[in-house]
Amino acid sequence: MINDLNVLRRLSELILSRKETQNGDSYTESLFSKGHEHILKKLSEESAEVVMASKDLDPEHVVREVADLWFHSLVVMAYHGKRVEDIALELEKREGVSGIAEKASRRKDE
Amino acid sequence: MINDLNVLRRLSELILSRKETQNGDSYTESLFSKGHEHILKKLSEESAEVVMASKDLDPEHVVREVADLWFHSLVVMAYHGKRVEDIALELEKREGVSGIAEKASRRKDE
Amino acid sequence: MINDLNVLRRLSELILSRKETQNGDSYTESLFSKGHEHILKKLSEESAEVVMASKDLDPEHVVREVADLWFHSLVVMAYHGKRVEDIALELEKREGVSGIAEKASRRKDE
Amino acid sequence: MINDLNVLRRLSELILSRKETQNGDSYTESLFSKGHEHILKKLSEESAEVVMASKDLDPEHVVREVADLWFHSLVVMAYHGKRVEDIALELEKREGVSGIAEKASRRKDE
Repeated sequence: MINDLNVLRRLSELILSRKETQNGDSYTESLFSKGHEHILKKLSEESAEVVMASKDLDPEHVVREVADLWFHSLVVMAYHGKRVEDIALELEKREGVSGIAEKASRRKDE
Repeated sequence: MINDLNVLRRLSELILSRKETQNGDSYTESLFSKGHEHILKKLSEESAEVVMASKDLDPEHVVREVADLWFHSLVVMAYHGKRVEDIALELEKREGVSGIAEKASRRKDE
Repeated sequence: MINDLNVLRRLSELILSRKETQNGDSYTESLFSKGHEHILKKLSEESAEVVMASKDLDPEHVVREVADLWFHSLVVMAYHGKRVEDIALELEKREGVSGIAEKASRRKDE
Repeated sequence: MINDLNVLRRLSELILSRKETQNGDSYTESLFSKGHEHILKKLSEESAEVVMASKDLDPEHVVREVADLWFHSLVVMAYHGKRVEDIALELEKREGVSGIAEKASRRKDE
């Protein structure tokens, strides 16, 4: 599979730019204009939709719902002035510490 | 910011490979061995943690929690044999349709 | 405080009766006509709203959001032909087993 | 069905009393000693479990998971010094305003 992940970067920058305009002309702008709690409710709803698609054992539907969840995650990030590279840096930091990416994300209280 | 997003690709492949071994020696393997519902519970928990960090208006904490949420999203994807490139392809498809990435993710029932 | 809990019983029966009519003239009927997944999305959203109100340390808001969460829980129950008394019976059963109500709800995997 | 709802009242009072002792000897006390965010994570997890049981179309499992969700709701309420009667009063207030219980819980932004 040769596609690259730059779409995540383009999307992240687009969302950050929409945060500035906020005239409500696009779905992203409407999210920002409806405010912080509305954005978090949408994120929660998307998370529930991933759970439901996964329970349906429908892989293509799971992909679409995870795409929605990541989109709304980037909106939450943009709300705080953050972008996709910050997520990548955080995940790289965990790789650096542990030698393997996943190890670092293990949490003490599991 | 010049870092690339390849960490997402490495992480996605690592998780897929852990799904095969599943001897429970790592956090990722323990997720797979605990099963589908356990994975979905963890995803839901991570989503709630993003909401809480966001309510705290703590951007660095938001980044860490979104990193956790994306990690667990990739575990859900791997459960269905999917990887990060599938998310990227889905988001690209929406860009293609609408001319702008975010437009396509708007949903009828909003 | 001398108020009784019969409002929960009245609400539960009202919701069950709305499930039958489903002409969409009330909020409850509109939930049923929008279907199972819509109901579960609303429940998830209400749960997120309890989390946000609780993070705000606003007890009166928490009460309102928990009331919303319980209302939508009763809609989920009604979807499966169940009512508030079934919840009460389940909680009583746990009291019976353990001598104390809470003990029984403890789960092995905590 | 002649069972009463007093188990909810007993449970609510028990939880409030456990909040005071908090020596961690019971599941409820351990929730309080692990703190606010832990309690909210458990609530979120229980909400996801209701969604999963409902997707499984397993009514008896739904009842058990809603019982868990209500138990953890009462823990959140107790965290803020509130009890089940406060939920009942809130729901009654909505009945009073609208003439029908459910109407009042309809929200503007639906």
